[in-house]
Amino acid sequence: MNPSGNCPSSAPPASATGCWITGIILTAPLKRGYAGFSIWDWHKLPGYIDQRYKDYARANAAIGINGTVLNNVNANALSLSKAYLEKTAALANVFRPYGIRVYLSARFSAPMEAGGLKTADPLDPGVQQWWKDKLKEIYSYIPDFGGFLVKANSEGQPGPQNYGRTHADGANMLADALAPYKGIVMWRAFVYDAKADQDRFKQAYEEFKPLDGQFRENVAVQVKNGPIDFQPREPFHPLFGAMPQTPLMMEFQLTQEYLGFATHLVYLPGFFREVLDADTYEKGRGSTVAKVIDGTLEGHAFSGMAGVANIGNDRNWTGHPFGQANWYALGRMAWDPRLRSEKIADEWLRQTFSNDPHFVNPVKKMMLASHETLVNYMTPLGLHHIMGYSHHYGPAPWYDKAPRADWNPVYFHRADRNGIGFDRTPSGSNALGQYTPEARRQWENLRDCPDEFLLWFHHVPWTHTLHSGRTLWNEMCYRYQSGVQGVQQMLNTWDSVVRYVDEERAEQVKMLLNIQLQEASWWRDACLSYFQTFSGMPLPPGIPAPAHTLEYYQSLTFPYAPH
Amino acid sequence: MNPSGNCPSSAPPASATGCWITGIILTAPLKRGYAGFSIWDWHKLPGYIDQRYKDYARANAAIGINGTVLNNVNANALSLSKAYLEKTAALANVFRPYGIRVYLSARFSAPMEAGGLKTADPLDPGVQQWWKDKLKEIYSYIPDFGGFLVKANSEGQPGPQNYGRTHADGANMLADALAPYKGIVMWRAFVYDAKADQDRFKQAYEEFKPLDGQFRENVAVQVKNGPIDFQPREPFHPLFGAMPQTPLMMEFQLTQEYLGFATHLVYLPGFFREVLDADTYEKGRGSTVAKVIDGTLEGHAFSGMAGVANIGNDRNWTGHPFGQANWYALGRMAWDPRLRSEKIADEWLRQTFSNDPHFVNPVKKMMLASHETLVNYMTPLGLHHIMGYSHHYGPAPWYDKAPRADWNPVYFHRADRNGIGFDRTPSGSNALGQYTPEARRQWENLRDCPDEFLLWFHHVPWTHTLHSGRTLWNEMCYRYQSGVQGVQQMLNTWDSVVRYVDEERAEQVKMLLNIQLQEASWWRDACLSYFQTFSGMPLPPGIPAPAHTLEYYQSLTFPYAPH
Repeated sequence: MNPSGNCPSSAPPASATGCWITGIILTAPLKRGYAGFSIWDWHKLPGYIDQRYKDYARANAAIGINGTVLNNVNANALSLSKAYLEKTAALANVFRPYGIRVYLSARFSAPMEAGGLKTADPLDPGVQQWWKDKLKEIYSYIPDFGGFLVKANSEGQPGPQNYGRTHADGANMLADALAPYKGIVMWRAFVYDAKADQDRFKQAYEEFKPLDGQFRENVAVQVKNGPIDFQPREPFHPLFGAMPQTPLMMEFQLTQEYLGFATHLVYLPGFFREVLDADTYEKGRGSTVAKVIDGTLEGHAFSGMAGVANIGNDRNWTGHPFGQANWYALGRMAWDPRLRSEKIADEWLRQTFSNDPHFVNPVKKMMLASHETLVNYMTPLGLHHIMGYSHHYGPAPWYDKAPRADWNPVYFHRADRNGIGFDRTPSGSNALGQYTPEARRQWENLRDCPDEFLLWFHHVPWTHTLHSGRTLWNEMCYRYQSGVQGVQQMLNTWDSVVRYVDEERAEQVKMLLNIQLQEASWWRDACLSYFQTFSGMPLPPGIPAPAHTLEYYQSLTFPYAPH
Repeated sequence: MNPSGNCPSSAPPASATGCWITGIILTAPLKRGYAGFSIWDWHKLPGYIDQRYKDYARANAAIGINGTVLNNVNANALSLSKAYLEKTAALANVFRPYGIRVYLSARFSAPMEAGGLKTADPLDPGVQQWWKDKLKEIYSYIPDFGGFLVKANSEGQPGPQNYGRTHADGANMLADALAPYKGIVMWRAFVYDAKADQDRFKQAYEEFKPLDGQFRENVAVQVKNGPIDFQPREPFHPLFGAMPQTPLMMEFQLTQEYLGFATHLVYLPGFFREVLDADTYEKGRGSTVAKVIDGTLEGHAFSGMAGVANIGNDRNWTGHPFGQANWYALGRMAWDPRLRSEKIADEWLRQTFSNDPHFVNPVKKMMLASHETLVNYMTPLGLHHIMGYSHHYGPAPWYDKAPRADWNPVYFHRADRNGIGFDRTPSGSNALGQYTPEARRQWENLRDCPDEFLLWFHHVPWTHTLHSGRTLWNEMCYRYQSGVQGVQQMLNTWDSVVRYVDEERAEQVKMLLNIQLQEASWWRDACLSYFQTFSGMPLPPGIPAPAHTLEYYQSLTFPYAPH
């Protein structure tokens, strides 16, 4: 980003060229990731340094990533114990020569679980002292420890609200303990515990915007790209542009939790570009999200971009050979959030496969089209959060059994005989009211709203005519079918270029594209079968009949799906 | 083994040279193995064939292993579902060209869980029909399916005893369903659910010996090498030689569940040799365990040797580079159970590292000494089952909180002010009575019993004089110390040969030997501190004082230890 900014006294000099935490990789050790398991073998640390740790540091350093959060945001107080600090220090020693700092996810209630205190209230002097002592201990092991990432009062994690305090109270308490060492706090804005009757879309904004200006200068609020949760497409998060006094970090997700796991080829920089280029209009036209998060819009000298890692202990790191491109892109875009996605694809393809234009050109085209293709076969026209419950695998728009209303697909699509979509205009939840008037103008009128965001903001009659001239129902059918056809096109492209690729990777990608084709058809057939029960309208010409009954799709279970 | 034996009609022609199931590898997909996780990615099967599956088949075929059991013996009925049979068939297709058959662990209650029946009683015609139908389905996917491995009525697994039937009733029901396809049943003898007041040592024999002669000809009873559970050293299992009418398969454990996980270098063929060469005296002198399991003693034409795999998705397969030697040895010894362990080490070292005698000779010596070294620092003089509860990591001879008496270390060592050890003579549990008189003669008298089996069979006064001329207490101290010194010697050896090894593996082994040295010292210090509270005797000269108090060792917890 802008390496000439001034460093606040409490921000770390993270690289030789400035004071930025530029690219942070969150290497969440999921029980079962989509590319194998975590590469951290905590049991064998600190005595055994796996060669992968060095390779990991080299790979990140090569693309400009200069920080790594080692443990999951759903944190365990054990991570702060002496035994685990010794293990973390061993990793920090491996990463240091590569200019990569380690960060830890901190469990807010650690003073109780690890310290035996009766409270974790951030205004309690004993709690404050516990964290100060703990930081002293951490820095004795890791002199350049980066700081804490915190998920608080979200999805069951403890936080300051347990004690009637605000997120700012919680973040500042940790920030004060970190400040003497120039460590920072990355406080996540992904919260939706407030009120169950509230549109989940609105909750982060409502909780965090009033706190703008109350955070210490070594706190960044880390905001996911969109307001729900890493869906295939989301509008930009309304907090961007709404907290001018607070450095906001971007949190992208590289791992494909909602995008077909590691078996779907989807190249994400085009979507990242879409978010970064979105105009918040905070200070008039051109107040893009990119300028918010690189600090130039409001003059913050301290900012960053984080990516939830898509790597695991798979031999090729990411499971899908093309998943590496998204990891690569995070580093490149963190240092230049204006970089074109085509440029990144070009670089990566040449470094990874071949310089031959007969390979690079068609495969680049395939990559650039892949995100729209995936959106089409999964969640066209602004549909969102209609995947399988808990594991998030495959389509389940019918699901309505989750313990929270806003964990159910039916909460998000709201299909009925009249239409489909979530009314977030003033006649509905008015989530649109969280954007500046100029920003929301693009979405607020059903007539003008771009098709790709339609069902994010409007409940739309099945018979409504879209920009294509088709009815909503017919357009939905065509989009799903177009998604499937897009995957078939990817297969054709790959078949046409395999002679430029080694046999093993050629075959790997082909197997994965075949899985993607099967699953795209599954999404199309399951979703159209289900939504047809509301629209009551026939499949238009050219749309194949589903391979199975709706009951069949609803009966599928995936007990061993990774999650 | 003997490839000229006659094949019973129901046994599969498993290889071109005979009718043997020679080497079976049990690739248990533990939640967390010691070398990473399972290599089977069930989620991505059948569409994605990982290159590792082919590499795995090649590696096994290269050393003569011709069967693989894909799922854990603590089985799930899901493994028999249509979706999983498709996945299993995909693996079978990969393995077939390498002469490797797939087997599955069958859950005995599957007719209820997967079939909706009200019972899994093996004498119920509906249950019998369910298995027949299921086998028909399995063979439609996998025409050369090998058969079932079954853990029944053991450690909570369901079995025929739930319905008042015998192990033979259960095994025969499955055998009848498999017979038309020439499939086999491997029925495990690892059971100890019978009576809680019974010496666990004796239970398998008491349950299985009476059933000899009742099993169908396509059933093998699979017996662990020793009577407890893969301890560092065990006497041979008393069932060997006690069931002449039944083919007995050997079950060795390659994965180091009780031998330091994947961080300790221990070369196992010497110990396997010890078990295979043990004389059962079933038909007079020379009735070795090897002859029992290769079928030559009783004229069985169908037999095998199984190994609980030590591989995972670690880059080097086994976590410890030297772990590969034990995998290699299983294949070699399965085809020739008389092969010398030195010969195997020589072959493996030359194929893996170097032909230079300056490397091969000292490292071979190190390997051959490693098992006795490990026994010395973990369980000298016949101690057994004194490791940490549940995860089995590290020493915990004091542990006495397990829900079953015979899961507690104190049950096995029985230390008190007078002495230590489990009296299995007629004055105690008389487990010795399960061996032939000639076989038990070596162990039954305290005076003659070899030191290495002493505490397996006798409760021995601390002041008893051993063959070395030392008291039991002093000998125990010297053995523990000798184990630690043995690891130091391994480190010295490795340091002297690293110039013959590539830098990465040289460093890996060195890190692992350092962990082994630390953990060997931990075992010595923790065990001697604890046992000293009974002996009340001082550490003899040359034995260093423990680094910490007994309370310190007892306070250690390992929440992330793999298990």
